Amino acid sequence: MRYALLLQYDGTHFSGYQRQKDARTVQGVLEEAAAEIFGAPAKVAASGRTDAGVHAMGQVCHADGETSTPPKKLRERFNALLPPDVRVLKSAAAPEGFDCTRGAKKKTYCYRFYTAESELPLLERYAVRVRKTPDLARMEEAARLLEGEHDFAAFCASGSSAKTTLRTVYEVKIRKTGKTLCDLYEIFVTGNGFLYNMVRILAGELVCIGCGKGIENMLKAFETGERGLLAKTMPAKGLTLENVDYGVPLFGAPRED
Amino acid sequence: MRYALLLQYDGTHFSGYQRQKDARTVQGVLEEAAAEIFGAPAKVAASGRTDAGVHAMGQVCHADGETSTPPKKLRERFNALLPPDVRVLKSAAAPEGFDCTRGAKKKTYCYRFYTAESELPLLERYAVRVRKTPDLARMEEAARLLEGEHDFAAFCASGSSAKTTLRTVYEVKIRKTGKTLCDLYEIFVTGNGFLYNMVRILAGELVCIGCGKGIENMLKAFETGERGLLAKTMPAKGLTLENVDYGVPLFGAPRED
Repeated sequence: MRYALLLQYDGTHFSGYQRQKDARTVQGVLEEAAAEIFGAPAKVAASGRTDAGVHAMGQVCHADGETSTPPKKLRERFNALLPPDVRVLKSAAAPEGFDCTRGAKKKTYCYRFYTAESELPLLERYAVRVRKTPDLARMEEAARLLEGEHDFAAFCASGSSAKTTLRTVYEVKIRKTGKTLCDLYEIFVTGNGFLYNMVRILAGELVCIGCGKGIENMLKAFETGERGLLAKTMPAKGLTLENVDYGVPLFGAPRED
Repeated sequence: MRYALLLQYDGTHFSGYQRQKDARTVQGVLEEAAAEIFGAPAKVAASGRTDAGVHAMGQVCHADGETSTPPKKLRERFNALLPPDVRVLKSAAAPEGFDCTRGAKKKTYCYRFYTAESELPLLERYAVRVRKTPDLARMEEAARLLEGEHDFAAFCASGSSAKTTLRTVYEVKIRKTGKTLCDLYEIFVTGNGFLYNMVRILAGELVCIGCGKGIENMLKAFETGERGLLAKTMPAKGLTLENVDYGVPLFGAPRED
């Protein structure tokens, strides 16, 4: 029996999703709970790994096992065993042939940063401080050029094992919100898949362009695949996996807003 | 020489503002930094104490001492010495006769809670989960009755040493925001001063009224001063001191939004 799980986690104290020896990982704590629930070792796969320090608003996982607990109630059994920084928000019997990794059609990540003279302790956990004030219009202009199918080779950290670096970015949406003591920027990126560090490199380049860097470097990076033309990878804590879309609702009807 | 400081802190790992022996407090870490900067023991007073676990978006403090550092730059000297969960956002020479405790004219607190089937790790640090969905119109109706000058004796935890329990609440503003997996409620309360636990009791009563409790209990509590008529004190982590108003700008012109 395969179960689909909707997960939220605060990545601060995890060494990423993927199980590692001698490190606290999301997969590690999930598989420990799953083994107890199913009474046998169980693998808990995710739509994709998240790096150390990256958060998830809505990660999707699947786990195989046998239990008399009804699928919808599995959530509660997991939560009774999991540490508070990770929660199963929804659980369901997976549709026929469902695979949370291969079946993911679209993913949305959000990169958050803010502009302020000093770090703001109430924002620091989930966003990164940027010293300069970027120009929103310039960022928007660059965002439009990122959309579509491109070879994102230059937007990829070395050491990636991706077969192809061709990816489609469906949308880059930038939201600027004036807060009491700063401006908060949120860059939402939706795509059919992402290369290693792609969103963090892309966010860094958008910030640099907003602060005056010429757009021609990014265009040349698309042509040449040269990582060095682009900005530094932004820190992990500003990144959140917001949503994974499978083209079908996995957990019943979505909430009306 | 007296300096005014604008402070932000994440209250999670502090045993409140007030200095205590053998406990990590905001005043403790501030006075340690101040002693180093001024080269002599220094008291750092605040507009008011915040309890263990309560956060501050904009707390105002003052400190007396002598240093050759220009007032505006004092901020950076403090931040070099303070732990990352507390930051001095602004510093300035205090106006003639300024006292951050006695001079505070208005304070605004915010109590945050959300409704969801399980805890959301990305909200849990600064908000509290409520299981039922409160009715906003009922909460608004009760909020209107809290506004004005009242004897808030019933809204006060025992052990308070306040001389009078008469307080003026200028405004209670409730904001409901639909998030991806929950609704977030923010209750902003502005008043000329607050009794011990007053905002946390008031927020609890508003939640209960929103969930069906009769408003007559609150009205009777105003008359009788009976704490037992009101809801339980809400947890500290949902509470943030947002702003302290002295009737004059302390740190130069405020930001335009």
